[in-house]
Amino acid sequence: MVPAIRIHASAASRARNLLRTVQYTHPPSCPCHSNPNHHHHHPRTPTLADHVRRHMATPPDPSREKEYAFEMAASSIRFGPGATKEVGMDFANMKAKRVCVVTDTNVAKLDPMKQAIEGLTREGIEFTVFDKVRVEPKDSSVKEAIAFAKPYNPDAFLAVGGGSVIDTAKLMNLYTVFPEADFLDFVNAPLGKGLPVTKPLRPLVAVPTTAGTGSETTGTAIFDLVSKGAKTGIAHRNLKPTLGICDPLNTRTMPSAVHASSGLDVLCHSLESWTAIPYNERTPRPTNPINRPAYQGANPISDIFSLQALRSTVKYLPRAVKDPEDFEAQSEMLLAATLAGVGFGNAGVHLCHGMSYPISSQNPGYKHAGYDVQHPIIPHGVSVAVTAPAVFRFTAASNPDRHLAAAEAFGVDVSNVKRESAGEVLGEALSKFLYDLGDQPLGLKNLGFKSEDIESLVEGTLPQRRVLMLAPNLNSELEAEKDELRGLLEQSLEY
Amino acid sequence: MVPAIRIHASAASRARNLLRTVQYTHPPSCPCHSNPNHHHHHPRTPTLADHVRRHMATPPDPSREKEYAFEMAASSIRFGPGATKEVGMDFANMKAKRVCVVTDTNVAKLDPMKQAIEGLTREGIEFTVFDKVRVEPKDSSVKEAIAFAKPYNPDAFLAVGGGSVIDTAKLMNLYTVFPEADFLDFVNAPLGKGLPVTKPLRPLVAVPTTAGTGSETTGTAIFDLVSKGAKTGIAHRNLKPTLGICDPLNTRTMPSAVHASSGLDVLCHSLESWTAIPYNERTPRPTNPINRPAYQGANPISDIFSLQALRSTVKYLPRAVKDPEDFEAQSEMLLAATLAGVGFGNAGVHLCHGMSYPISSQNPGYKHAGYDVQHPIIPHGVSVAVTAPAVFRFTAASNPDRHLAAAEAFGVDVSNVKRESAGEVLGEALSKFLYDLGDQPLGLKNLGFKSEDIESLVEGTLPQRRVLMLAPNLNSELEAEKDELRGLLEQSLEY
Repeated sequence: MVPAIRIHASAASRARNLLRTVQYTHPPSCPCHSNPNHHHHHPRTPTLADHVRRHMATPPDPSREKEYAFEMAASSIRFGPGATKEVGMDFANMKAKRVCVVTDTNVAKLDPMKQAIEGLTREGIEFTVFDKVRVEPKDSSVKEAIAFAKPYNPDAFLAVGGGSVIDTAKLMNLYTVFPEADFLDFVNAPLGKGLPVTKPLRPLVAVPTTAGTGSETTGTAIFDLVSKGAKTGIAHRNLKPTLGICDPLNTRTMPSAVHASSGLDVLCHSLESWTAIPYNERTPRPTNPINRPAYQGANPISDIFSLQALRSTVKYLPRAVKDPEDFEAQSEMLLAATLAGVGFGNAGVHLCHGMSYPISSQNPGYKHAGYDVQHPIIPHGVSVAVTAPAVFRFTAASNPDRHLAAAEAFGVDVSNVKRESAGEVLGEALSKFLYDLGDQPLGLKNLGFKSEDIESLVEGTLPQRRVLMLAPNLNSELEAEKDELRGLLEQSLEY
Repeated sequence: MVPAIRIHASAASRARNLLRTVQYTHPPSCPCHSNPNHHHHHPRTPTLADHVRRHMATPPDPSREKEYAFEMAASSIRFGPGATKEVGMDFANMKAKRVCVVTDTNVAKLDPMKQAIEGLTREGIEFTVFDKVRVEPKDSSVKEAIAFAKPYNPDAFLAVGGGSVIDTAKLMNLYTVFPEADFLDFVNAPLGKGLPVTKPLRPLVAVPTTAGTGSETTGTAIFDLVSKGAKTGIAHRNLKPTLGICDPLNTRTMPSAVHASSGLDVLCHSLESWTAIPYNERTPRPTNPINRPAYQGANPISDIFSLQALRSTVKYLPRAVKDPEDFEAQSEMLLAATLAGVGFGNAGVHLCHGMSYPISSQNPGYKHAGYDVQHPIIPHGVSVAVTAPAVFRFTAASNPDRHLAAAEAFGVDVSNVKRESAGEVLGEALSKFLYDLGDQPLGLKNLGFKSEDIESLVEGTLPQRRVLMLAPNLNSELEAEKDELRGLLEQSLEY
């Protein structure tokens, strides 16, 4: 805590040190040299003066330079059984006067909402409830929610529900703070303008009632942009909740099938963020830190979260699904969902999520067992996991060691596995995990897709640039990329 | 990201679920039963109605109940070589108009300050520099810094330096936002009033120039309260910086001896937070979440940070100390310091830190090799590490598995070690690590302390309640506690 005294090095030793730094880090850590295209700028051995000059000057062409830094941001997280009842005091502590409570019609009737409302009432805080959140929000449902929030002009928000609720609350908050903004201003490019969020938003406390999305920790909000026929969203650090209250009592009422599909979302969050391209391979390097994306590629801090979440999911998800009384496993899955949220919220996801959006929206009529709804539904976690075996077979070549470590998390003894077999071994472990979990479609055919649907799924995946740009091993040339996506979907037909 | 549909369970199944929860978690997770002293409240088997009533009502005597939740809060962290040059844009992005830059006279002359000043100037932001931070701050030096900040009334702060600088900037921020507060209002109890910080502070960006304190991620500020003759501080989540910019180019100028002692601070942050009492063994349970301390005991999220930081420190600290050109090791140590900061910033430290304060302040005249200062000095990291072998021999009985895992992080093959030998094995591994690191005092005698000094060191340790309360295995009865501290200090005389 208390620092050691800082010794002032002499100018000469500082110069020597800087020179050593530059020599050591060339490549890859000296920011001005990370792009090999730049080497022709100084074919001679660079001198210290060159480097100092370059470090001082604006880099020559940032759009072609690779990233050199990463930024980790996450909501504060409070975790404990019963913690929901503290939420009224949290709003009193932040001196909130008008709270907009956001939920959906189902959650509105459940205990977490009861606790939240009792807490606000006990503290004498004025609030209003918006309970019309659409599960799997569309731009129209989001706009309806925003239209509710703007005239009420709350000074704080409380979201109680799954990811749809929390995501919608983030967007209500955003457009209440920017009431004049056009809806597309902040929507991810290229579908929207992708403008950064230039002001802090109002406090948002999120109380998740599912163990899956991790939305309580992230600055991401996902919805269907019906006007453009694509699933997209808004992603910026300023959208992240102030506080996520993770109360394992709140996920007790999830049916087994919901535990399973939410948990598969956690599995893919952790696996995709763990295997995403490294942050320092991403281009372009932002010229202003406000433009550094939340989805920035794998980095040494997201790695810790992602791997821990993966290990927990492998251990506890089967227990949480099979035994509705296994409160320990359910609690651990809620924690894993949050950890994975911090991981992918800062590193991103890639191919499984990119392909999941058209898989869900082009559903040929599949209705997942255990979901008590009137219409066909491929739960998000199911649509994500169905391509996972093929995806990680494909991505393994980019980083066999990481894929072997992931296979090891599934309990595979990898001590004698060759690095070139990493993808096969991880794909096999994933297929087995899905099979053992039970009631999971083992391939797109089980969802009703046919070979002739693949082209349309490929076309539906292509607009997901924000996640595809983080896919390791994916060809950057359009036709080659389409071939690769086609191959992944074909291999996902059945297994 | 996108949630699975939330299914509305029937009232009957919800009741069954709640009942199962309660049965499963009794003990330890049902908040109203975590204290065994409460069991006499309902000797009969509790019914669902009992539980619902108890969950709704205020717990009977919170001061005797154990904690049931933990809260993780950390600054956003940006990490990358050269990232310091982005800091001007950060202040422009937050629309800061008057920035108070805080540093010390040594760091004022170094490159990180040059980068920071250039960045602010480039963005045309008005700023003023306070460069009089005292290394190892005293209340008088902190008050001087606050007196500088108040009339300037900045809308944001930038700290460039080691932990002393960052800690002082936190306090300047606090008392600028609470200009009427008495200095002791926020100082840790029992020396001060320990009031919670009830308003958000102004943005503070911290740029560490040492790899040790982790202050860039924490809400803690430490200083000597000379009027009370004790080292103490102020700790609240609201003090934490908005953003820590960890730029490994900024630690390049640390001399080898500073690398070593800063790194020993990281080592003890990680080991102490990893072995602190679990959060749900801490009493009292706060009646308002604002009173939940930052130092709350080990929890499943701090654990991840602490163990990773420990592993990195064991691997990279010896390299960073021995080879001033090993930029990879230095970068990894900066990252480890930050990770350990998140770990101990939310879990706390205990005996090594508690005893380090009197060891440093009662220095009999020791001047650590490699420190180019005129006066005797026991660097903070040295004063912390010198008792570590004795401390972890003592604490091991509280949780042998954790101590074995720590020994494993030092490379010890623990597969055949008995649990009752965990302390011995970890203590031995620590002694060897300190010996191999070189130039470390192997015991208090090397610092000039004699047996007759121990009583005074014990007396100097006792006021450190905030950390002692997290020490596992320490007797809560005063005379027994003194005996135990005496024993630890005696065993630390030489090894």
